[in-house]
Amino acid sequence: MIVYLNGKYLPREQAWISPEDRGFLFADGVYEVIHSYRGKLFHVDEHMRRLKNSLAGLKISYSNIPEIREAALRLIQENGLKEDATVYIQITRGTNFPRKHAFPPANTAVTVYVMAYPITPRDPERETGIPVITTPDLRWARCDIKSVALLPNVLAQQQAIDAGVTDAIFVRDSVALEGSASNFFAVIDNVVLTHPKTNVILPGITLDVVLELCRKNNIPHLEKPIYLNQLWTAQELFLSSTTMEVMPIVQVDGRSISGGKPGKVTRKLQTLFKEYVASLP
Amino acid sequence: MIVYLNGKYLPREQAWISPEDRGFLFADGVYEVIHSYRGKLFHVDEHMRRLKNSLAGLKISYSNIPEIREAALRLIQENGLKEDATVYIQITRGTNFPRKHAFPPANTAVTVYVMAYPITPRDPERETGIPVITTPDLRWARCDIKSVALLPNVLAQQQAIDAGVTDAIFVRDSVALEGSASNFFAVIDNVVLTHPKTNVILPGITLDVVLELCRKNNIPHLEKPIYLNQLWTAQELFLSSTTMEVMPIVQVDGRSISGGKPGKVTRKLQTLFKEYVASLP
Repeated sequence: MIVYLNGKYLPREQAWISPEDRGFLFADGVYEVIHSYRGKLFHVDEHMRRLKNSLAGLKISYSNIPEIREAALRLIQENGLKEDATVYIQITRGTNFPRKHAFPPANTAVTVYVMAYPITPRDPERETGIPVITTPDLRWARCDIKSVALLPNVLAQQQAIDAGVTDAIFVRDSVALEGSASNFFAVIDNVVLTHPKTNVILPGITLDVVLELCRKNNIPHLEKPIYLNQLWTAQELFLSSTTMEVMPIVQVDGRSISGGKPGKVTRKLQTLFKEYVASLP
Repeated sequence: MIVYLNGKYLPREQAWISPEDRGFLFADGVYEVIHSYRGKLFHVDEHMRRLKNSLAGLKISYSNIPEIREAALRLIQENGLKEDATVYIQITRGTNFPRKHAFPPANTAVTVYVMAYPITPRDPERETGIPVITTPDLRWARCDIKSVALLPNVLAQQQAIDAGVTDAIFVRDSVALEGSASNFFAVIDNVVLTHPKTNVILPGITLDVVLELCRKNNIPHLEKPIYLNQLWTAQELFLSSTTMEVMPIVQVDGRSISGGKPGKVTRKLQTLFKEYVASLP
């Protein structure tokens, strides 16, 4: 497997960074995960736009988006990724010594790391739906920035696994916000709901695709908060993410959702999503 | 400069970690910073106890504290650090591939990184006191765990520097909690106040020393919240940390504190702290 690190294409085993990298010391960096279908990057423009927003949010001076795009495409080729794959991109504020929280000098080179590898499509889970738990949202107040400060997400996902389920939904102020690495939707009164894009959720690329599919297909949809107490009577619940696509939720905290089976609207959106992906050039 | 990485003592330039390290990808790790005075580690037992608590808080399976103590001592020697120095220790949940939030297999080796380097004592600032700003606390809900998910702290410290001051005090729910890398104290009605050790502050080692010095010297002290609106009329304000020791605050958000000079109680605690350090074997 070939990866990209600071201008070089290297075998994965030869890619090394300094432990003084601010990504390692301070979580001072941002990332993106892009789905590659049949060797083509899905919605790469949107991912690049979000990457720019994340960099701007942290005031990391880096604007060489063509470098990232080229690395992503070349890694798909170099690694022969003709089927489902993900491209992972991370940019940190570089290395500085001695360790100091404040930003390093303006001329400090950022660290750019890109990897691409095959993934197994989660079709079986998309067929049956997944069980989840809810968990108090311990995260910071800028969940809209896709930063590598993912420790609360790590703990939430592990909590889900320890509970024997697939994912955890963050709940803050009685609102069910999003999954540990996915956005969250409910179907209530035949309307597809998802949280407005504020500071408490990540503006998901797949979320946008789902909303656009609703729009084009006259499926009623609204961006508004989903309260925890609405989950138990919701017609359907589902998650969206780059790797999950449209993932039905059939159980929350041990309680069955939509009769323990993926709901009709979720099914419809899965089909529309697949068709949309297949339609791309 | 020699550093310690996963069992080896290496020149700093030869220490490399994988970009797949969970410290780099997820901020999935903990750290400690210990002050070394005249080649002796200050309150190393307390730092090791806190390190164990942080590891337990994140469920990182590592208990080889003797390894850490030995590395810290040996780096002080190898690097000839006979005067003021800090030892930085970081332990992450190791490396796993492919990238996945949830914990890696139980037998995954943690990453252990230790460095030690000289620091310049901040005596001039301790003499004059420092200006600070207040900033909304955007951090997560487990500030009591000394994790490397320090991005909000980075942004706060940079915000202070951009404002032309030395540090920023995190304010949450109208309570002034702590600095970007320090604990916070106020002297109000002749009582030294600092926030109770809850989930919203780091349980500082230097904070404990300050409280113990108060105890031994009959200086009235209480652990209770300091409200933002109390700052403007407080007799004195100060910070404590491993590298700052006892640092007077003489300005907050542009307003002068204690007449723009370090206050009496702060001065007394600085003297007691210096005497205490000098008294250690």
